[in-house]
Amino acid sequence: MINRNSEVPCYSQLSQILLEQIRRGVLLPGERLPAENAISKKYKLNRHTVRRAIERLAEEGMVYKIKGKGTFLAKTKIPYKVSKKTQFTTSILQAGLQPDAILLDTYEVIAGDEFAKKLNIQPDDKVSVLEILRYADEIPFSHTTSFLSAKKYPGIHTLLNHTFSFYKLLKEHYGVEATRRTSTFEVSLPDDKDMEILQVSLKTPLLVVKSLSESQDGDIVEYCLSKFRGDLCSITVDFHDLRG
Amino acid sequence: MINRNSEVPCYSQLSQILLEQIRRGVLLPGERLPAENAISKKYKLNRHTVRRAIERLAEEGMVYKIKGKGTFLAKTKIPYKVSKKTQFTTSILQAGLQPDAILLDTYEVIAGDEFAKKLNIQPDDKVSVLEILRYADEIPFSHTTSFLSAKKYPGIHTLLNHTFSFYKLLKEHYGVEATRRTSTFEVSLPDDKDMEILQVSLKTPLLVVKSLSESQDGDIVEYCLSKFRGDLCSITVDFHDLRG
Repeated sequence: MINRNSEVPCYSQLSQILLEQIRRGVLLPGERLPAENAISKKYKLNRHTVRRAIERLAEEGMVYKIKGKGTFLAKTKIPYKVSKKTQFTTSILQAGLQPDAILLDTYEVIAGDEFAKKLNIQPDDKVSVLEILRYADEIPFSHTTSFLSAKKYPGIHTLLNHTFSFYKLLKEHYGVEATRRTSTFEVSLPDDKDMEILQVSLKTPLLVVKSLSESQDGDIVEYCLSKFRGDLCSITVDFHDLRG
Repeated sequence: MINRNSEVPCYSQLSQILLEQIRRGVLLPGERLPAENAISKKYKLNRHTVRRAIERLAEEGMVYKIKGKGTFLAKTKIPYKVSKKTQFTTSILQAGLQPDAILLDTYEVIAGDEFAKKLNIQPDDKVSVLEILRYADEIPFSHTTSFLSAKKYPGIHTLLNHTFSFYKLLKEHYGVEATRRTSTFEVSLPDDKDMEILQVSLKTPLLVVKSLSESQDGDIVEYCLSKFRGDLCSITVDFHDLRG
């Protein structure tokens, strides 16, 4: 119980109590924490104190918040596998979770020097941009922005409405068998847009993966920037899978 | 602090001080530098001198300005490559930087269930642990902790004093050609030890890579936990290199 005469602030005592319940398995990974006002009543603390205690746990990565749903106990990180032909859906299913995705936005931009170099096209060529938000068990998991030559893949942003599998779409509509050429792993802190889309706080680091894929002829097909919630996922490259 | 009697001009001393803060992670990539007049007050320098110091950093590509918003820390990261046979030294040299390393600590532990499973040995077998701190251009770059079977690789912690190349040592002394089997990428915030060893602040996320390597016979050789400074490095997996 909370000791109001202690030098340890109430919020800190409360986060210790919750932590202890987590350790003893009273609260299980993935389970929702009781609502703030329920905790507030139980420990006779005001909601501000309860909120502060939970924020502390979130900073330590013990819990995570989902907008409009509540606060949940962190799971061991979602194991996401990357190979030459990664399929988000397959990888998430293998992890025992339910995959889902929504197309956030599609638009065209002029390549400019940066994307011209990346995609091996001309600086004044058009680039199709597709933003996809992917979910694992209804948790926003990754935000992917894909860049492809608009000339080589005409209409791709309208076709993607029907399927979220790039590889399938590229094969069926353009006869291109895309495979991963390189992936670069970085970390960064979220900006305002990341915080909104991935529902994370300023302090949650993101695992950023920048990938290039190529066709069977060795042409660059896609440059792809994926931001994964660092508190939720780990990404494994299996160097065996890559041999074939 | 600024030494006004030095032959080194004040602006140059200031840019060195700011550079040092960047290296130590007091200032993070993408973060805004304090305003000129705040720096001016702190170091008791006129604004012209402060401006010149910042211009110097901008010329070196360490910071960039956004009109009306301020000066921000550049995001360029050290490109580190991972393949089936990554050599830290080679990768850092390729990035045009000077590699270096020190052996921080070596000791033995009892495997326990976790390492027994990882290394495919018995829980009561001994495990040799080696902690290495690696530098790129004198900046602490990664902290690696390696775990190997003490029975299979007797004396490895004494042998490593002479060379920091695991692959070379394993080949020359044990006849083992080690290659990477899997690497798992995660992010985490630094703990007290990480902050001290990698000279980063609490805010600097780390890129954590957990790898397993195997011998030519498919035996697990090493489990390795590497913590890279997330503000300084990006890690690229080339899926072409992995074919062979």
